[in-house]
Amino acid sequence: MRDVAVLGVGQTKFGELWDRSFREIGIEAGLQALVDAKLSSEDLGGLFLGNMASGALIEQEHIAPLILDYAGLAGRHLPAVRIEGGGASGGLALHQGFLAVASGLYDYVVVGGAEKLTDVADATAAQILSSTADHEWEVVFGATLPALWGLVARRHMHLHGTTREQLARVPVQAHEMGAKNPNAHFRNRITVEQVLHAAPVAEPLGLFDCAPLSDGAAAVVLGPLETARKHTDTPVRIRASEVACDAMALQHRRETTIGEATVAAAQAAFRRARRDPKDVRLAEISDGTSIGALIALEDLGFAERGRAGPEFADGAFALGGRVTVNPSGGLKAQGCPFGAVGVAQVVELVRQLRGEAKERQAPATELALAHDLGGTGATAVVHLLERAG
Amino acid sequence: MRDVAVLGVGQTKFGELWDRSFREIGIEAGLQALVDAKLSSEDLGGLFLGNMASGALIEQEHIAPLILDYAGLAGRHLPAVRIEGGGASGGLALHQGFLAVASGLYDYVVVGGAEKLTDVADATAAQILSSTADHEWEVVFGATLPALWGLVARRHMHLHGTTREQLARVPVQAHEMGAKNPNAHFRNRITVEQVLHAAPVAEPLGLFDCAPLSDGAAAVVLGPLETARKHTDTPVRIRASEVACDAMALQHRRETTIGEATVAAAQAAFRRARRDPKDVRLAEISDGTSIGALIALEDLGFAERGRAGPEFADGAFALGGRVTVNPSGGLKAQGCPFGAVGVAQVVELVRQLRGEAKERQAPATELALAHDLGGTGATAVVHLLERAG
Repeated sequence: MRDVAVLGVGQTKFGELWDRSFREIGIEAGLQALVDAKLSSEDLGGLFLGNMASGALIEQEHIAPLILDYAGLAGRHLPAVRIEGGGASGGLALHQGFLAVASGLYDYVVVGGAEKLTDVADATAAQILSSTADHEWEVVFGATLPALWGLVARRHMHLHGTTREQLARVPVQAHEMGAKNPNAHFRNRITVEQVLHAAPVAEPLGLFDCAPLSDGAAAVVLGPLETARKHTDTPVRIRASEVACDAMALQHRRETTIGEATVAAAQAAFRRARRDPKDVRLAEISDGTSIGALIALEDLGFAERGRAGPEFADGAFALGGRVTVNPSGGLKAQGCPFGAVGVAQVVELVRQLRGEAKERQAPATELALAHDLGGTGATAVVHLLERAG
Repeated sequence: MRDVAVLGVGQTKFGELWDRSFREIGIEAGLQALVDAKLSSEDLGGLFLGNMASGALIEQEHIAPLILDYAGLAGRHLPAVRIEGGGASGGLALHQGFLAVASGLYDYVVVGGAEKLTDVADATAAQILSSTADHEWEVVFGATLPALWGLVARRHMHLHGTTREQLARVPVQAHEMGAKNPNAHFRNRITVEQVLHAAPVAEPLGLFDCAPLSDGAAAVVLGPLETARKHTDTPVRIRASEVACDAMALQHRRETTIGEATVAAAQAAFRRARRDPKDVRLAEISDGTSIGALIALEDLGFAERGRAGPEFADGAFALGGRVTVNPSGGLKAQGCPFGAVGVAQVVELVRQLRGEAKERQAPATELALAHDLGGTGATAVVHLLERAG
């Protein structure tokens, strides 16, 4: 299997991009990544595009060739493939792009993620998001993603004594970082008080515990590690790319406060890279809800089971803490264009590993972890990235 | 790159399966393929699932883990990925499964395709199918897939003298083969007269020129060729798996009667396998419309440009002809559950290469080609399969 490196990264602003079409933002991110990798489109071998629900959201399926086409590349007749796994679509696209290069069949590929969530009414978008949970066993009974996460939060509080205030620290930190990220959907700082008094979404979760609906796109260029130096002084090697799945419906999980898909993907990734969670000082994790972020930290091995709440509140996961978590602002503050998230996480980590993250730069480190989640955890994708020089 | 073989195949009946859910048919096909490959689910390394529009059709995205879950495999935490490219979704899923095994990261995987089209009104389904064309440049102006193909047919007639009767021979042959396929949606024979006098859909295409909306699922097990003999006496090697794309909108193509994506994918596949179209005596091709089938035969190199119509009428592509085309009955008669089609084509070809196709068995041959198409041709996938012993 051939070693694979990230050679270039690109990303649009995340937010309510009402003046920009799906195809425009997809192209902007992809071209940025190509330029960053010093590649011309003639070197490009294919496109792997993560997207959750363009069919339902903008009545357009079959979007991978669409993006190539509007990038002016239709005449090249390149392969283009869309990958979907709810909120994990971007991470899955990266996995497919990784396999493509690792197999030797492809040399240079763009992996993109794009989503246009704000062109429909919020209620419609929320309904479409729920289609990433189990329709027949959850959604028809009225469950939404935040409602399901609300149940999980209650149980985590019951089992481990996690407090409402500890949950609130998650979005407060996210907005702190978002304020430093020019691409972030939200760049305002918020306080624990504001989180506690925000409108309830699904008790105990309020408005600030839940990531927003965002538009946005992100892209990376992958290629063989052996020729990476031609394209960048700081290639970032993909040391592991692992996917794991679990039961769709929360009620069919063994324990709702353990994300077994994340545990399985992380263990597989650490095994493959011959590293363990203690080696990781930098991570982008799925914080679609505050409780989801705390559970992910436990699933990934960054905190003992049940301890993520107090440790988060103690600053263990702040910029420069034990593990710098979500320096981008995460899904909460950088924004949550579902299919773009998993790719944007890697864009951020590559910038961090290169030392290009400016005021949100984490302490220098060589290893970073990206964690992307679909639904309430039926799909998890974990990537381990390592600075190759 | 590791050599990849098809070790097992499975397929549900295609048709209006109102009594069966999406998850049921997906599982039936997958389990059949596992049993056929003499694999237990414990040997399974992952699932790659082709599906066009489950989000819009059954309000369920994120379906790959759903299928694993309802197959009783959630506890294994396997990777599961959905791939979408309109009507080419199944072929693309096969490409991804091929890359997974070829890379060495996966050993045994199931590649499935599934679609449930008949649970919504026909008009709704037709609208959803149109989301695989260019929404902003075609669909908003009222174009549907058959309407676009109708334009292409007129132009093929104008350029090459293709006749309405020649077009009609395509569905007549499809139904002839469907009558011999117990899984086919349509098992009735039809006549040229019936095709010519059927209700118009988009002139010159009538009801019988267009494939139906079907439910159905198909699956194959892929694994390394080197260990294939443990699982089957007749492993079928994937000699080439190639994807190519073209402009989404018909009006942006250089020539609407040439499927450049198909040409590019086929040429790449023949180059990789060091074969040419003359070596192929057996093929499953995309016949979503009668004109689409004729153009595909020209694009694939089975007929000179403009000659597919008369040659089809002369029986060149009938069972035992120069190339036996669509012995399954094709999309027209076996049925057209979009995301399942590309996988079902390979199921049929494997059965043919093994000599298990009973009354629809083509003359013995070692090489076969599968051609899957998305939209009006923005995505094409070509696989070359070879009996390995």
